[in-house]
Amino acid sequence: MLTPILDSKGAMPLYEQLYRHIRREIEEGRLKAGERLPSKRALAAHLKISVVTVEGAYQQLLAEGYLSSRPKRGFFVLAGEVPSLGEAPPVPPPQESARPVFRYNFSTSAVDTALFPFSTWAKLMREVLSQQEGTLLDSPHPQGVPQLREAIACHLYRFRGIQAHPAQIVVGAGSEVLISLLVQLLGREVGYGVEDPGYAKTHRILTSCGAQVAPIPLDSQGLRVDALEESGAEVVHVTPSHHFPLGIIMPVTRRQALLQWAASRPGRYILEDDYDSEFRFSGRPIPALQSLDSGGRVIYLNTFAKSLAPSLRISYMVLPPQLLERWQKEFWFYSSTVPSFEQYALASFMEGGHFERHINRTRLRYKARREALLTAARDTGLTRVGTFTGGDAGLHLLLRMDGRWKEEELTRRAALAGVGVSPLSGCELTPPAAPRLPALILGYTQVDAQDMTPALEQLKKAWQF
Amino acid sequence: MLTPILDSKGAMPLYEQLYRHIRREIEEGRLKAGERLPSKRALAAHLKISVVTVEGAYQQLLAEGYLSSRPKRGFFVLAGEVPSLGEAPPVPPPQESARPVFRYNFSTSAVDTALFPFSTWAKLMREVLSQQEGTLLDSPHPQGVPQLREAIACHLYRFRGIQAHPAQIVVGAGSEVLISLLVQLLGREVGYGVEDPGYAKTHRILTSCGAQVAPIPLDSQGLRVDALEESGAEVVHVTPSHHFPLGIIMPVTRRQALLQWAASRPGRYILEDDYDSEFRFSGRPIPALQSLDSGGRVIYLNTFAKSLAPSLRISYMVLPPQLLERWQKEFWFYSSTVPSFEQYALASFMEGGHFERHINRTRLRYKARREALLTAARDTGLTRVGTFTGGDAGLHLLLRMDGRWKEEELTRRAALAGVGVSPLSGCELTPPAAPRLPALILGYTQVDAQDMTPALEQLKKAWQF
Repeated sequence: MLTPILDSKGAMPLYEQLYRHIRREIEEGRLKAGERLPSKRALAAHLKISVVTVEGAYQQLLAEGYLSSRPKRGFFVLAGEVPSLGEAPPVPPPQESARPVFRYNFSTSAVDTALFPFSTWAKLMREVLSQQEGTLLDSPHPQGVPQLREAIACHLYRFRGIQAHPAQIVVGAGSEVLISLLVQLLGREVGYGVEDPGYAKTHRILTSCGAQVAPIPLDSQGLRVDALEESGAEVVHVTPSHHFPLGIIMPVTRRQALLQWAASRPGRYILEDDYDSEFRFSGRPIPALQSLDSGGRVIYLNTFAKSLAPSLRISYMVLPPQLLERWQKEFWFYSSTVPSFEQYALASFMEGGHFERHINRTRLRYKARREALLTAARDTGLTRVGTFTGGDAGLHLLLRMDGRWKEEELTRRAALAGVGVSPLSGCELTPPAAPRLPALILGYTQVDAQDMTPALEQLKKAWQF
Repeated sequence: MLTPILDSKGAMPLYEQLYRHIRREIEEGRLKAGERLPSKRALAAHLKISVVTVEGAYQQLLAEGYLSSRPKRGFFVLAGEVPSLGEAPPVPPPQESARPVFRYNFSTSAVDTALFPFSTWAKLMREVLSQQEGTLLDSPHPQGVPQLREAIACHLYRFRGIQAHPAQIVVGAGSEVLISLLVQLLGREVGYGVEDPGYAKTHRILTSCGAQVAPIPLDSQGLRVDALEESGAEVVHVTPSHHFPLGIIMPVTRRQALLQWAASRPGRYILEDDYDSEFRFSGRPIPALQSLDSGGRVIYLNTFAKSLAPSLRISYMVLPPQLLERWQKEFWFYSSTVPSFEQYALASFMEGGHFERHINRTRLRYKARREALLTAARDTGLTRVGTFTGGDAGLHLLLRMDGRWKEEELTRRAALAGVGVSPLSGCELTPPAAPRLPALILGYTQVDAQDMTPALEQLKKAWQF
């Protein structure tokens, strides 16, 4: 008869010890399929435990399908020996992505979180917690909570000239999530054009979602509409307000040509990625392409990652009416991907005018940094060997260098000197048609104004200019 | 010469009023491409405004590409009349999804948020806000913040017998997000099997992501492995701990057969959806399929939507080692979809033992509701015309009725009486092979124990039993 060693003083209940013992006996083939188990009463007497304990173990084995029970006949082993399925490969050690740490980091992927109005945000979050207790826990509307969509619509109207009904807005956990939803909405089989050079991540996401992606070359006015037409793509992703990374502001004639391209065939759409439009340093913001579009062919995308903090994971898009209808019919089953909590907090933040103030404050700060960078470039003599371009907008500049070293050598030498810069080649989806001078992308959101000269002094030594 | 009506007392700066006027003149064709604009000085004198104001307007038009500037010659109109692109269809009125409101709601899609430990959660959130200021705003690790992954690994080991290294865990904004990432990882071209009947949403998401989906029939032990083999699918989505909606607990022999199916060919994977495994009302939890898998073929998925609140939008998966490697190589570019804030708060909640206590508390509460439902069914005579099945786990029961009315009529009559129930047919992906008696799904997370009798009294009138 079964004779496990049961430990009545152990942390594990006796019934569980017994269950585990019998389970192991079955799995290791010592109890065979079809064999009859002792009756509960007999096993309880044998082990000097209560019938209830045996009952608990048998019930668990019954529930998991190790035993079957036949009325008046007892319990029988159902499962056989567990066949070996081969060894799983060992778990690799945790690979926490090692981001290089630079003394002066001109990366473009982060913002200066020190500028974030943390105390206001914390206060609003506390208010949300105390005021919205009930609604906070319900599933939010699939497109996002109405308050937030209203606040976004209001912001878009005031700052981007966009007339969007809150019902047209879809909030999502980052542009990646929204783009992968758009691929599902617009179809995988239509071609997708992307700017080349451009934001390599967009290319990766589209490809990963199964879309056919065509890199479209640029000229001085931005994406070439003739090349787009030739490519056969039916959907195009563009950054017209401030091209990444070249900084081109697409002029109105090119915008009109692009809109006409879209209007000339049904099913053509423009994904307008307005990722850093809040940061224009002189004059008023460039109007969004969407605001020129009378045909409902522009899907406007923006994110709070640049304007607030990357960790918030809130992006949104504005769907044209005819797509909205399909969206609501076919995609209602997708839950919102952003927690209600963040959505309510952001809505209050926008309604209270905090977002506008935050943008104005950071714009001034970033402008000072950009100017300090350009001044330091003159003072250190960097402008003798390189030229900055990129318009007076956005959060990065492009530095075109003379040909003393290749881009990768410039990047490597800068890194060794503690300065993080990115090569333009990282944004090139295809090799450039003609050889070009090396160029580097310098984001200035993470380097203080007073650090610009020391940073460029380091580059001076590294690049020997 | 240009003669706009400028309002020096208006809210809009003069330069912007002038810019808008000139832009409209160009767009409506009154200023033609190639035309020369008055010099800044001349226009300023004409309008009795400062040269700086005109300069501001011209610079903006220059930046947007409406004008070009030729040195020493002045400013010329670049853009032509804006061609009409047709009228956009009107924006439909906001369609806030109208969820039916029932007096007694036996829906399965929500939990009782009144049980949520709101004050503890709020306290932890405040602590996170005050302690983590810096890290809160940085982009979280693409797989989720390490603290949360450690807390999940620890929970899985203690409650589900799963040995998962925190590096194997990927946190995401809901199961939809994780499943669409898995389709990208495992490929669209391999077939995906889903349980039929089953969770219709999984079928929709997989289809929407471009995967080929094959509904796989069940028998009394759950998914039929022979039918799976025939279907040609290489990946299968299953709910072995508690089938939705039939409530079947897959016995160990079937689990072994399923694991052998996966092990028999490279590239075969099982997506184990453990959506409500926390809620087993007697004995110990059923071990996860993943814990029996020695071949690294099970991808374990779970969510906090059922165990905490749907609004949190936090799900996770455990990738087997060989997939993890590919994931880290090919998917590192995807940002985490869950805000850091929620991740840190949930990590503290789990580390502090609050999650465990919450689960235990809600399990007791739900158990009382299930028992009240079954008692009320006997007392009202519902058990004379119907049978409840579904094991002693999970958050719903299946009610198989006699044939007095069709499912849709039963559902309709219940709704009219203020009682929300769901027809089984909503989970059937293909029509059942043989005609079956009507069956309804009753979730009991939103109906209080003392409301079960009144709710069933309503059904008694509606269904005339």
